[in-house]
Parts: sequence; structure tokens; C-alpha cells
Amino acid sequence: METMRIAVIGAGGRMGRNLIRAISESDGAELSGALEREGAEEIGADCGMLAGLKSNGVTVSSSMDEAFAGADAILDFTAPAATVAVSDYAAKHGIAHIIGTTGLSDEDGEAIAAASQKTAIVRSGNMSMGVILLSVLVEQAARALEAADWDIEVLEMHHRHKVDAPSGTALLLGAAAAKGRGIDLDKTSVRVRDGHTGAREPGSIGFATLRGGSVVGDHSVILAGPGERVTLSHHAEDRMIFARGAVKAALWARGRAPGLYSMHDVLGLAR
Amino acid sequence: METMRIAVIGAGGRMGRNLIRAISESDGAELSGALEREGAEEIGADCGMLAGLKSNGVTVSSSMDEAFAGADAILDFTAPAATVAVSDYAAKHGIAHIIGTTGLSDEDGEAIAAASQKTAIVRSGNMSMGVILLSVLVEQAARALEAADWDIEVLEMHHRHKVDAPSGTALLLGAAAAKGRGIDLDKTSVRVRDGHTGAREPGSIGFATLRGGSVVGDHSVILAGPGERVTLSHHAEDRMIFARGAVKAALWARGRAPGLYSMHDVLGLAR
Amino acid sequence: METMRIAVIGAGGRMGRNLIRAISESDGAELSGALEREGAEEIGADCGMLAGLKSNGVTVSSSMDEAFAGADAILDFTAPAATVAVSDYAAKHGIAHIIGTTGLSDEDGEAIAAASQKTAIVRSGNMSMGVILLSVLVEQAARALEAADWDIEVLEMHHRHKVDAPSGTALLLGAAAAKGRGIDLDKTSVRVRDGHTGAREPGSIGFATLRGGSVVGDHSVILAGPGERVTLSHHAEDRMIFARGAVKAALWARGRAPGLYSMHDVLGLAR
Amino acid sequence: METMRIAVIGAGGRMGRNLIRAISESDGAELSGALEREGAEEIGADCGMLAGLKSNGVTVSSSMDEAFAGADAILDFTAPAATVAVSDYAAKHGIAHIIGTTGLSDEDGEAIAAASQKTAIVRSGNMSMGVILLSVLVEQAARALEAADWDIEVLEMHHRHKVDAPSGTALLLGAAAAKGRGIDLDKTSVRVRDGHTGAREPGSIGFATLRGGSVVGDHSVILAGPGERVTLSHHAEDRMIFARGAVKAALWARGRAPGLYSMHDVLGLAR
Repeated sequence: METMRIAVIGAGGRMGRNLIRAISESDGAELSGALEREGAEEIGADCGMLAGLKSNGVTVSSSMDEAFAGADAILDFTAPAATVAVSDYAAKHGIAHIIGTTGLSDEDGEAIAAASQKTAIVRSGNMSMGVILLSVLVEQAARALEAADWDIEVLEMHHRHKVDAPSGTALLLGAAAAKGRGIDLDKTSVRVRDGHTGAREPGSIGFATLRGGSVVGDHSVILAGPGERVTLSHHAEDRMIFARGAVKAALWARGRAPGLYSMHDVLGLAR
Repeated sequence: METMRIAVIGAGGRMGRNLIRAISESDGAELSGALEREGAEEIGADCGMLAGLKSNGVTVSSSMDEAFAGADAILDFTAPAATVAVSDYAAKHGIAHIIGTTGLSDEDGEAIAAASQKTAIVRSGNMSMGVILLSVLVEQAARALEAADWDIEVLEMHHRHKVDAPSGTALLLGAAAAKGRGIDLDKTSVRVRDGHTGAREPGSIGFATLRGGSVVGDHSVILAGPGERVTLSHHAEDRMIFARGAVKAALWARGRAPGLYSMHDVLGLAR
Repeated sequence: METMRIAVIGAGGRMGRNLIRAISESDGAELSGALEREGAEEIGADCGMLAGLKSNGVTVSSSMDEAFAGADAILDFTAPAATVAVSDYAAKHGIAHIIGTTGLSDEDGEAIAAASQKTAIVRSGNMSMGVILLSVLVEQAARALEAADWDIEVLEMHHRHKVDAPSGTALLLGAAAAKGRGIDLDKTSVRVRDGHTGAREPGSIGFATLRGGSVVGDHSVILAGPGERVTLSHHAEDRMIFARGAVKAALWARGRAPGLYSMHDVLGLAR
Repeated sequence: METMRIAVIGAGGRMGRNLIRAISESDGAELSGALEREGAEEIGADCGMLAGLKSNGVTVSSSMDEAFAGADAILDFTAPAATVAVSDYAAKHGIAHIIGTTGLSDEDGEAIAAASQKTAIVRSGNMSMGVILLSVLVEQAARALEAADWDIEVLEMHHRHKVDAPSGTALLLGAAAAKGRGIDLDKTSVRVRDGHTGAREPGSIGFATLRGGSVVGDHSVILAGPGERVTLSHHAEDRMIFARGAVKAALWARGRAPGLYSMHDVLGLAR
């Protein structure tokens, strides 16, 4: 199969550079172009150099026509306005659009859905293959092991600089567990335990948070039953995993019928 | 719902006593009778006392008619010949039969299948709910995460007295992973690493074994990809988990149509 | 060496029964007698039967003279008043006294110290060898790895019925870390993280609590530095570990000069 | 205190670049110069650029006089011949010498010892602070917990490209355990378990190896006793930890009396 040609948006940012690196590491993929907003200092820069790689002759442009020329797919972890505009462009030119952008409104979602009638779009709030898989397994485990006997706890650890708790991924995993149980996470989650807590509330989902060092992100969902425990964990070694997941999604989307897909589809997981 | 009445076979053995205890701990279940082979010293003994509980007035008998009188289900972790005979009896009397017996031949299996046309039979080589669930999750994870990028390793730890390696459960989990990958475990497993091993063989499934102390049984399946890891683990606290699983299976089988079921069915897991 | 003869106090309680079992499992030790308070229903009962073992001919008495006749050591996890009285008796008769009793006042402590001038007394708030060892290792690690770079977190998990958090052992481990750092745990511990927490406070010691199932007690102290992590963990499989530790302490105390010892001494650990 | 000035040898190699980065990250340290062998292509290059940082004006030289001008310490992960020559130079100029070089002969060791009579030299086969600390804790744990009751196992996991097993660090930790026990690791280690192994040999030290993905290096030493387990673990997130340890050693060596030191001294750990 011919090498897939992939363009990157937000090439000057940390995520954009990771995307450039992830493409360069992937068999069957090559960088075709890169977009930055009008006036960004990276316009004209060599993308390889930007990403700490060897020069690759692909320069950053502020024109979609230039940046997306010859592209089979566009990787996009930017901001809602840019994502909606790119989606429209992608639909018109039949380019796959891989969207990791967060903070999209319902209206943005509708614009993207409309675009997906003309091209394949993969959209996910978390592009790590491991995290998405884990969330599916957690939902299934929570459904199979009944609440009367099995307690669910979500544990996460991140670096010392993280300013909120629990992490978004911990909440995503808790939501998957709640979905498996058919309960409302907001009503059943226990996020603080200190002093006299009383016995554990049956059916609740507990969260615990660790902070320290330079930990990229560890998550565990523990199902603790009578005399046995099932623990489902994800360990992130570096922040490249989201970029790698986006490239996987692009490769998967190749030749796919127009439609709005998720990482579950990329992983072949029913929801 | 009325309390389910459950009989136990092999009441004098360690597993039989665990089954008696597991029934006594379960809401909605009570011991209805107990069988031992002709001549066993426990004949006539009180089942509660046998299991280290209070006297419960149920005595061990060597007659199936006595032991199974009024039973809704029979729990059976014995030997092939006894299991086949009990299966036939259960079919004739419409009693559910929960079979944890191992070492059954194909012929035994056919006899059990024939019996299952008249009553509900649940048969499983491993009655731990956690292990069965884990094997399903492992198969799914192995299918979703492609072999080129994700390596699969199976780790187990057991007490210092265990004489073989890897454990049966480790092999069961390895087989689930191989099934998910569509490969043959025998041809792809790596069970020894020492000295100059060379780089890891792509697509292989590695096993590692720890032995020590009084560990009941810990198992982990690790899927290690580029920059991230998914770990699916089971921890057994005590040997009661198999007995508890059998009681769960009995409660599940109540009122079920005749048929041959597995713990996957009990857990509501598609295979 | 002759078998050591060991007496147990509070023989009718759960801990007393565990002590009887731990003695019966230990090479070089045998049960010599058992004390219960005047009027307890276990007076006169066979200790073996009480502990779920075979009858051993040792009966429970309410008289110290009878219960401690011929004893080389006394194991005591009871209440302050009983412990102080037994300590005095042990001192007069040159019997080693192993004290796991909690809630002792300063005055009680002085009475015990006085008794220790005439016999060997081992006193510890936690008799698990693993926990005591861990606390020593944690203190050392906290001292060696400087606070500017290395963050300390204490994680514990217990069963669903536990009504307080963090566990006493988690606080003991946190105190060991604080001692290693030369800081005051009360002023530096962080026991709740939820919502916008801000970045981790340098030098703080964080606690996180998990609850679920039938977990006997898991504890981890994590030291997270730049690019690396050291984790020191204890896993309890059953509640017998405290009883086993007390028997070890008794065997260690044999022939020891009078004095007040701790489990650190039993383990040969400097403090 | 004035900023410490530190020079790097082998600046063009992967370790040399890591050292440059580690210095730039450390408060109180700055790069003073860099050495490469005559004819290396990096001669004259800017060290910041070499390390993927901003230009820092320090250029690589092949002359010791140039590279070490004004240096308070030299970081050295090179080869025996270079290390011995640099040690001699450091001694003459009173510069601290931090040696992570491996493969040094006894003769090399003597030359370094001689140099250490005139300057502070820190030499270690492993510069990770976490690993060195762990080895000290393992030795202590192995000494405290007696072999009759507590079994020792060493588990490690590394990436799919590693060609030997167990890892050098696993063997270092096993040797620390053996030292604590006063036994010979070569005679007591068990490195393969497959098929019918028989019960665990009392007093042996077991090794188990996992390989997969991009794991930088995980190590655990498990002490498994009756009913409890102590696990001492190290997790490496990136390969910078050795470079960071070397910088720590340099900062520690400042103003130190001449002598041959180890990472144990840097960490304040008695051996």
C-alpha cells in the first residue's frame, strides 16, 4: 500500500511537535504539510527541525490549501473554532479528519457531524489506545460483577505539578464503571475519605489520588470482591501516546466510508 | 424468593467443607444435604461441625436419594465417575448441577451434555468469577491491540509449595490472549529467559513465574505497547473463591431452561 | 533446645485464638496455659477446640498461677489494666511478656518499664514483622532522598467494613517518613485531594485511601523523584501475622536479659 | 553558594547529551566545558544545540586543558582508558571526578584510588539514586527477615529490544539480598521455572523476567513470608536518571576532602 500522507495542525505547539514525531516513527505514514495560525513565528520553519528531528523539507504554512495539499488525513488537537473550520475543509476535499480537540460545544459537534457525511472523521476525548481499551474493559467488568459483592475504586497518580484531582482520565474510567452498573457517577462517587468515614457505602465508586515526582499518568480500576480482586490498569510512559493514537486513527480511517467514528471503532470495540 | 436448597458432594474433603461454608455465607441459599462415598468416616457427621461452623442438623449420607432430597442444585468438585453419575441423577430429578470437577474425558463430557438436555448444568474448569472475567477481558484486549506494537506477558505468583510452573490459570490466561490474537499458544509462548536471549520475538506470549511464602495466587497479563502499558490482574485472597463462584452459579441456574452453561453465562459475558 | 512454653491471655477472643493457632504452627513453641477473666464462658474449655484445632488438653483458667504455671513467655493483646497486672506477675516470676495491647497510658508504660527491670518485655503497637521492617526502611529512604526532589505518598487499602481513614498503619508509615525527613507529620500531611488542589506542596506527605471487598490490609509508601520512583509495600494476607509476630518475639526473648524491647530489636534493626 | 561549574566527557554520545541536559536542569550547576576524542565530528559544536537545548556558548573541545578550564567537577561515563587519564588530570588540578564508567579493571581501579588521594572521586556502577537506595534497603530486609520463613524473589521488566536476562540491576539487587543473608548468589539463584519444578528450594533467590514494549526498567524485590509480603520496587521513567544522579554526586562532592566515595556516601547510607 502507498504511504499515507498526513498533515498536522498547530505544528508549533507541544502536541503538534509530538504529532510530527509520531508520523515520522510510523511505517506507512509521512508528513505532507503543517498548518499554524496566521502570524505564528513558526510559519516557514522546517517541521523536522521543529520536532527535534532531521530537516524533512516540509514547511509550516498558514494556508489550508498549502498545508493540506495532497493530504489523506489531518491530525488536529487544537481549539474548537479551528477544528470546525478544518472539518468543513476536510469534508469538501475528502480528507480524513482526526480530532483530539477538547472543549467542543454541542453546536461544534453538529458541524462536525455534518462534515462527517462527506468524509471519515474520528473524534475522541482521549486518543490513547490503552485508555480507550481500558474504559471498555472497565464497563464490562462493572456490568459482570454485581455491586452487592464487588466494590469499585479508581486510583490515579500524576506528577507534582498537576493542579486538579481526580484526573480527567480517572473520571472517564469512573464513568465507564458507572455505565456498566447502570448508575449515575455523580450520585455515587466518593472522592474524599478522612477521619471517621463509616463503612463503605454499597454501590459507591471511590476515587483516590496520588501526586508526586514526574509521573506522566497511572490509572487503576480495582474491583474488590469477597476473597478476590480484579485490577485493570493503565500506565503512560510518555506524552507521545496521544499522538501515536491519532496516527493509528488516521491509518485506520484510510478508505473508510464517510462517517463519524471514535477510537472504539479504531480498536474494533463494540460499545 | 424462597431460599434455594443446595446439596454438596464430597462433603468431607477440603473443597466440600469450603462449599458448606460458602452456602452458609450466601443470602438466599441453604444447605439441603451432603453426599460422601460409601464407607467414608464422615458419614453421619453434622455438616456445620465438619466445616468449622455451628451444628446445622444436616448430616452426611452415602445415599443420593437422601443427600439430594429436596435439593434445587448440587455443587460438585469431585472426580469424573462420581460427576457423571450425579449428572444423570440430576437430569432425572430436574436438579441443577454445578460442576467444577476437572479431568473429565470427552466421553464424560458427552454424558454430561446428554444430562443437560433435561436440567441446567453449569460446568467450568475454573469457578473464580474474577479469573473467568479476566480471561474474557484479556482475549478482548489481545484482539484490540495489534501484535506489531503490543507485547503480551503473563506473570503469576504462588506459594512456596507449588510444584509446577506456570500455573493452570496463567496458561488459561495465555490461551485467552492467544485466542484474541488468533494464534497458537504452544507455538508462540516463551517460558524461559536466562542469559543471552536476543530481542523479544514479535508476537510471542511470555510467561514469568514467582514462588514464595503463602501466596494463594496472583496473576497479571501485561500488554506493553509504545509508551503505554495495560495490565489486567487477579489477586486471590483465599481458596474460598471457587466455592463462592459455585454458589453464585447455582443461584443463577435457578429456574433456567435445561442446557449446558459455563461461568461466562453466569457472568453474562459473550464468548 | 527445649521447646519454649508459652501462655496466652484473652484466650476466648479472636486474637487469643489466633495466638493459640500461631503457637501450634511454630517449631520450638508449645502452649502452656491460657487465661480468661473471671466468669468468662470459655473458662474450662479446651484451647485446641477453641482455636478450631484438635483438642490439646490445655484448658482456659481464670487464675494467673494456673494459667502461667511453667510458662517461659506470655502473649498479651488485651487491655491496659490486665496488661499492667500481668507485667507485674511476669516480673516476679521471670517470665517474658510480649505486649501487643494498645491504648496504654503513660502511667501504664511506666509500670511496664518498672517490670522490665526484672524480666524481658517486648512491647509494640504493631506486631507484624513486615510492617515494622517497612517502617524502618521508609524512615531511611525518606532521609536519603531529599525533599526538594522526592515526594512521599502513602497509599492504603482495606476492606469495605473499615470505618476510619487513613489506617493506623498508614499513619505509622507516614510518621516514619516524617521522622526520616525531620518534619512534623501533623503539619505536612495532605489527606484530601478533590477539585482544584493547586500544585503539590513541596515537602508534604500525601495520603490516599482505598476501601473495598475483604482486603486485609495493603500499604505502599511511594517516593516519587525526577524520572524514577521507589515504592515500599506491605501486603497482609491474613490477620494471623500479628499473632505470628508475637510468637517470634517470644522465641527471641528467651534467655534475654531483663529490659524493655521492641519489634525493632526482635528484627535486629537499629532505630 | 556560587554556581558549581561542571564539565562533561563524551559530550557527543547519548549519555553525554543527557549529562548536558541534567546540568541545565539543576539549580546550582552550570556546564563549564565538554570533551570529545580527537577527530570526533562534534568538536567545535555548541553543547546546548547538541543536547536539543538552546545554544549555550560552550563548545566541545578535544583538549583537556580547554574542556576542564575552570571546572569544579567532571562527569564521566566513557571508557576505562579515558577515565583513568581524566582521573589523573583531575587529581593534579583538584577537580572532583564523578565516574559512571563500567568495565574498569582492577588496575584501572588502583589508578583511580591513587588519584583519589588528591581529589574527591565518586565511583558507582549504577548512578540512579533510587536503585542504590533500593539495594541498601533490600540488603537490610534480607538480613532482618529470616530465610526459613521469608522467600526472596527478584522481578524485572524491560523493553522488547533488551537481549539479555536478568538485567544487571536485577543481579545487583539479588546480590544485595544474598549479602544480607550471608549467602552466595551464584549458588542460590533460581533463574528458570518451567514444567515440574518441585517445591521452592528453601533459602534460594528466584529471578523472573518480563520483556515488552518500551519499558525503561522496572525492578521489584519481593520478600514473601507466612501471611504477609514486603515488596521493594524501583520504576525508571526515563534514561536521564543516571545523568541526574551524576550531577547530584558532583554537587555533593563539592568541598569534600580527597577520597574515593560511592553513591552510598552521596545518599548518606552506611554500607
